[in-house]
Amino acid sequence: MAGSTFGNIFKITTWGESHGRGVGVVVDGCPAGLPLDESDIQKYLDRRKPGQSRYSTPRKEEDTVEILSGIFEGKTTGTPISMTVYNKSQRSRDYSGIAGYYRPGHADLTYDMKYGFRDYRGGGRSSGRETIGRVAAGAIACKVLNQLGIRILTYTKAIGPIEITPENFDIHQISESPLYMPDSQAAEKAAHYLEECIHSQDSSGGVIECVVDGMKPGIGDPSFEKLSANLAKAVCSIGAVKGFEIGDGMAAAKAKGSQNNDQYALSPEGGIQKLTNHSGGILGGISDGSQIILRAGIKPTPSISQKQSTVTKSGQTVQIEVKGRHDPIIVPRAVVVVESMVALTLLDMMFASINSNMDNLIRFFS
Amino acid sequence: MAGSTFGNIFKITTWGESHGRGVGVVVDGCPAGLPLDESDIQKYLDRRKPGQSRYSTPRKEEDTVEILSGIFEGKTTGTPISMTVYNKSQRSRDYSGIAGYYRPGHADLTYDMKYGFRDYRGGGRSSGRETIGRVAAGAIACKVLNQLGIRILTYTKAIGPIEITPENFDIHQISESPLYMPDSQAAEKAAHYLEECIHSQDSSGGVIECVVDGMKPGIGDPSFEKLSANLAKAVCSIGAVKGFEIGDGMAAAKAKGSQNNDQYALSPEGGIQKLTNHSGGILGGISDGSQIILRAGIKPTPSISQKQSTVTKSGQTVQIEVKGRHDPIIVPRAVVVVESMVALTLLDMMFASINSNMDNLIRFFS
Amino acid sequence: MAGSTFGNIFKITTWGESHGRGVGVVVDGCPAGLPLDESDIQKYLDRRKPGQSRYSTPRKEEDTVEILSGIFEGKTTGTPISMTVYNKSQRSRDYSGIAGYYRPGHADLTYDMKYGFRDYRGGGRSSGRETIGRVAAGAIACKVLNQLGIRILTYTKAIGPIEITPENFDIHQISESPLYMPDSQAAEKAAHYLEECIHSQDSSGGVIECVVDGMKPGIGDPSFEKLSANLAKAVCSIGAVKGFEIGDGMAAAKAKGSQNNDQYALSPEGGIQKLTNHSGGILGGISDGSQIILRAGIKPTPSISQKQSTVTKSGQTVQIEVKGRHDPIIVPRAVVVVESMVALTLLDMMFASINSNMDNLIRFFS
Amino acid sequence: MAGSTFGNIFKITTWGESHGRGVGVVVDGCPAGLPLDESDIQKYLDRRKPGQSRYSTPRKEEDTVEILSGIFEGKTTGTPISMTVYNKSQRSRDYSGIAGYYRPGHADLTYDMKYGFRDYRGGGRSSGRETIGRVAAGAIACKVLNQLGIRILTYTKAIGPIEITPENFDIHQISESPLYMPDSQAAEKAAHYLEECIHSQDSSGGVIECVVDGMKPGIGDPSFEKLSANLAKAVCSIGAVKGFEIGDGMAAAKAKGSQNNDQYALSPEGGIQKLTNHSGGILGGISDGSQIILRAGIKPTPSISQKQSTVTKSGQTVQIEVKGRHDPIIVPRAVVVVESMVALTLLDMMFASINSNMDNLIRFFS
Repeated sequence: MAGSTFGNIFKITTWGESHGRGVGVVVDGCPAGLPLDESDIQKYLDRRKPGQSRYSTPRKEEDTVEILSGIFEGKTTGTPISMTVYNKSQRSRDYSGIAGYYRPGHADLTYDMKYGFRDYRGGGRSSGRETIGRVAAGAIACKVLNQLGIRILTYTKAIGPIEITPENFDIHQISESPLYMPDSQAAEKAAHYLEECIHSQDSSGGVIECVVDGMKPGIGDPSFEKLSANLAKAVCSIGAVKGFEIGDGMAAAKAKGSQNNDQYALSPEGGIQKLTNHSGGILGGISDGSQIILRAGIKPTPSISQKQSTVTKSGQTVQIEVKGRHDPIIVPRAVVVVESMVALTLLDMMFASINSNMDNLIRFFS
Repeated sequence: MAGSTFGNIFKITTWGESHGRGVGVVVDGCPAGLPLDESDIQKYLDRRKPGQSRYSTPRKEEDTVEILSGIFEGKTTGTPISMTVYNKSQRSRDYSGIAGYYRPGHADLTYDMKYGFRDYRGGGRSSGRETIGRVAAGAIACKVLNQLGIRILTYTKAIGPIEITPENFDIHQISESPLYMPDSQAAEKAAHYLEECIHSQDSSGGVIECVVDGMKPGIGDPSFEKLSANLAKAVCSIGAVKGFEIGDGMAAAKAKGSQNNDQYALSPEGGIQKLTNHSGGILGGISDGSQIILRAGIKPTPSISQKQSTVTKSGQTVQIEVKGRHDPIIVPRAVVVVESMVALTLLDMMFASINSNMDNLIRFFS
Repeated sequence: MAGSTFGNIFKITTWGESHGRGVGVVVDGCPAGLPLDESDIQKYLDRRKPGQSRYSTPRKEEDTVEILSGIFEGKTTGTPISMTVYNKSQRSRDYSGIAGYYRPGHADLTYDMKYGFRDYRGGGRSSGRETIGRVAAGAIACKVLNQLGIRILTYTKAIGPIEITPENFDIHQISESPLYMPDSQAAEKAAHYLEECIHSQDSSGGVIECVVDGMKPGIGDPSFEKLSANLAKAVCSIGAVKGFEIGDGMAAAKAKGSQNNDQYALSPEGGIQKLTNHSGGILGGISDGSQIILRAGIKPTPSISQKQSTVTKSGQTVQIEVKGRHDPIIVPRAVVVVESMVALTLLDMMFASINSNMDNLIRFFS
Repeated sequence: MAGSTFGNIFKITTWGESHGRGVGVVVDGCPAGLPLDESDIQKYLDRRKPGQSRYSTPRKEEDTVEILSGIFEGKTTGTPISMTVYNKSQRSRDYSGIAGYYRPGHADLTYDMKYGFRDYRGGGRSSGRETIGRVAAGAIACKVLNQLGIRILTYTKAIGPIEITPENFDIHQISESPLYMPDSQAAEKAAHYLEECIHSQDSSGGVIECVVDGMKPGIGDPSFEKLSANLAKAVCSIGAVKGFEIGDGMAAAKAKGSQNNDQYALSPEGGIQKLTNHSGGILGGISDGSQIILRAGIKPTPSISQKQSTVTKSGQTVQIEVKGRHDPIIVPRAVVVVESMVALTLLDMMFASINSNMDNLIRFFS
């Protein structure tokens, strides 16, 4: 199938493998007249760069983006924006082992099942490098959203069993911490936990949380195209995501109605305010203008050096150790990927809302 | 926007409100030659019928489906299958209260924000009755899947804090229990818990689990159209779903790689078997042919008779009690809805897989 | 495949066969707040009604539309509008002949090739009755367009070799003439021509022309989603259409650049005016705000009573005569179908244009 | 809107402007295991290269394609194939004139209307260079089709008023003639005609015809997704196309049923054969396995050196002469573009047909 396109009106198409000539994205449907240059994109790409800390792979990828189309005199023209990041660190390496067996937790086996064969060098299309295109596109979506007054904050909520606590929440820690955790105490504990993982040749999962401020109300649809449903797909389309929560998420299943309902009262300014936000800013699939809150549960990096049992293509059970420089955790690098997917979803669904009511429509076309 | 269509190749379009003339669905892309009559559909609709137990609303809805097109001489013709269920229990009732304020936990406010006004009678398009079209279509998808050897089992995993236990799991209890719980002890406890909820004019959430057997391998795509991402959207498009998990779900975030990886070994018959199934049957977004396992976290019914604070359209804070016959829990009735959405997703994505490799393609077109 | 849905944001899904229980359409993405009732739809359906003249089938179909959802207190709610027209004139008839052989010019053979079998009663899904859903939906699209100042005029331009002449063009004749021809002299000649066709047990093709006034500029996209390309698909999706022309159409292929270019000059009011309109209101796939002009070439009705050679399912060449009351021409009844498809296309593409430039976007969302 | 993506299952996304850094395409949904390298693509690109004859612009574009992803060890991997052609002949040039006024017949005015401003260097996204991505993708589609036994032949049918004649049709002349005309006498006359156009600083339109052999039967859908409707959109999405015909096209509108119906008889081998092919291989929107025949009417090149009236951005009527090296006709270079769009459409619709009937489906998935 053709699964590399995301969005309907603001539409992106990504391409590229970890060990091919490069990775990239075509962004189509970006409004004309947005000031944009490569530095706008690079800032976002740098947030997913490896080698930022001891907990991400030390290899230097130097992901430098080039914009090939869609910009004229410093502004978007409304036509497709093509962006490429060339792969630079293609070391010649011996893949004979990896080519012959199926790494546990990776997509090696399912690729062979689907395609009949696979590019066995470093995960091919399932590599983390596939997210470069998402982030480059997400940077543009965020810039458009910012111009409309919408801002997205994303951070690490938990690493393994270590979770941030509301009382220690400090937004400034996000950019300070190599783990992007807004709680310095939790970050310290998490660092110790990751040291243990490295020492025992193991890896860790974690949770990413995303909060949207300034969201427009009325976005999303009551049936299949709920805003929450589209956010779920966007977030679960990121490799390694095994769970998605909006608002209280799975905890809502244990709650009673009297606890979970968000009651209303008039705000001092005469507007409507919710007294709580268990729903995460979406009711009946439609945004209510309050904070959108969601979380992604990320599985531990499958590449570990511990011995694991697997099977070869020729049909033998073998014990393997996945060598190489692997992140003991991908959560910090995935923070900006979640933010990108959320931005892409919000913008696309806002574009799809022009026809909600005749008043809007007449106003827009007059 | 146009959000009432789901699927690309096996495509359904639902319509109807709780208090209009009826609800229905058009199923397009169903293969020709499938034996089908109304009883195939009715069986599934009866599973979501209210009044089955003390824990669902006692009102009798008698949802009888009529097939209006797409069948000739007992078989599908390959053209759209239109199905209608007329609304029968439209009692004239006083909606003057509900019309004037915004019920907490309902979509009343977001409808007004989006559309400028709303059909205030019983939730309109956000009513549980919207799921009738989904289930009628799901019944057809399930029948096609069954012919291809794929079977879906769905049940209540938890009600409030009461969860089934693996050691008591008994598949036969699902159809025995009005709560669709495959654990008679848990079901008994859950019944007590719901009695308490009713007594305190409150409601409960819960968790639904779905297991797919016989899934074809190689379905799904490595990037945005991961099978897991599409299942996430499908499940989260059901009203009241606040969380989605595939395989170990949010628990994977707390695990280490050595625990979470599914190792392989040769099966006695010489095939490849996974020693565990933490991934839930999907790796890199592609099915591996093992059991697909997923869960939906459902929030408590928002309609409760306890006093709640809200705001009127004319701008006053008021205390309301939502009267009427409301389910203290919707989880049991939603079981077949989750099953339907899973079936629709699997079938549509299988159809989208013909072009995975040249060998398949040449075989299919020769 | 699932081919019964048209449009992306204003989306319609049709269903039904000529000899099933009915035909219908679900219109999704209609803005909330549009005043709408069944009479708005009926007016359009009546324009495609048979039995209006000697040149359409004398059978009385009495196509009465029922709206089942999406309207509340006389206005659209923004949710799907489901409309059904029940088939009334299902006479029991002997189809044993038609079931056994393939009628020339009909889709009998291709249905068997695609689906393995077919509903042989009267053309099934390829019947002219399939257009009822299109017209019912088109009536709504036209009403929305009218509110935005856009009006569509559609008429018969030619019947067989008889064509209207610019000097005799009289808009009032369209509704006067059973042939919907805006030229009374041409209409008279065409009537004679059709008499001859009837007499010789033959049928005639023709050309339908459509002119759009008040179109918004800037609608359409430079690449695949040209407004002209979408109009081409919309019009060619009508059964019996074999050719499509925009502006000068096929004649442009014979022209020179100096003849075909539309030059500009300032209008007396200071705006830009085109001195000619060979382009038909679209340049580079994008509307320029001037009249959109397009034509559809319609083949002659395939059902004729003359002897024709064909083949039976059991593999014999036979000579057949297609009996029954058939239109000697479908062009007049297809006029409103072309108009409907044009309206649906224009509206959907206008909805897709909100993101053309940042100024529009900021204006819309502020 | 996002209009640079074509196809649903075999999906392409093009990008790039005439005077940006390059143009390209991402091909998604190509089956794995197709042998493919750059020479397969280059062959098709060379067919649209300028400077091949006196009738196309003498500038040398040297369009060399680079494949950046989706190929491993000489075969497609099933993941997106990204191809780039860098723009080489970007001469610095004075665009101050062109920037200030609207060229007749070009999209200058509509771009300003849509986007608020435009990249005025050489047509931007509406340049003929936009078709490079289409042709590169079309080359891949053709290779897949060839492996399935389907071959497409495309040629110039007419240049201005000069048309090929059936009696002189010689397939070998297509590649011999710089005009791609399969009739040496017509080609000679056309050459004279073009000399005249050049001499009078004018340009010519023409007609391209496309014939598909070996088409699979049963492809396409009875309603909106007719094969003919999709071909119409594909062909009309090419800049400068003003008319589309399938089979007899507009001539069918003048015909009688007895002339236009294709009668059947048993073939000597016992199969069904059509005695004529007025329908062009499609009935009811579905292919019948016979030759598909279609035509595109192409308008004359709008860039001519004759004086023309136009308007400046600052609101003055001026007389301009469009200087530069322009093709007096684009038809010969557009032949391979039509072929590409037809190939992309056929393949995508074949992929969408797997679900036509249960027998196919069970066969495919077993």
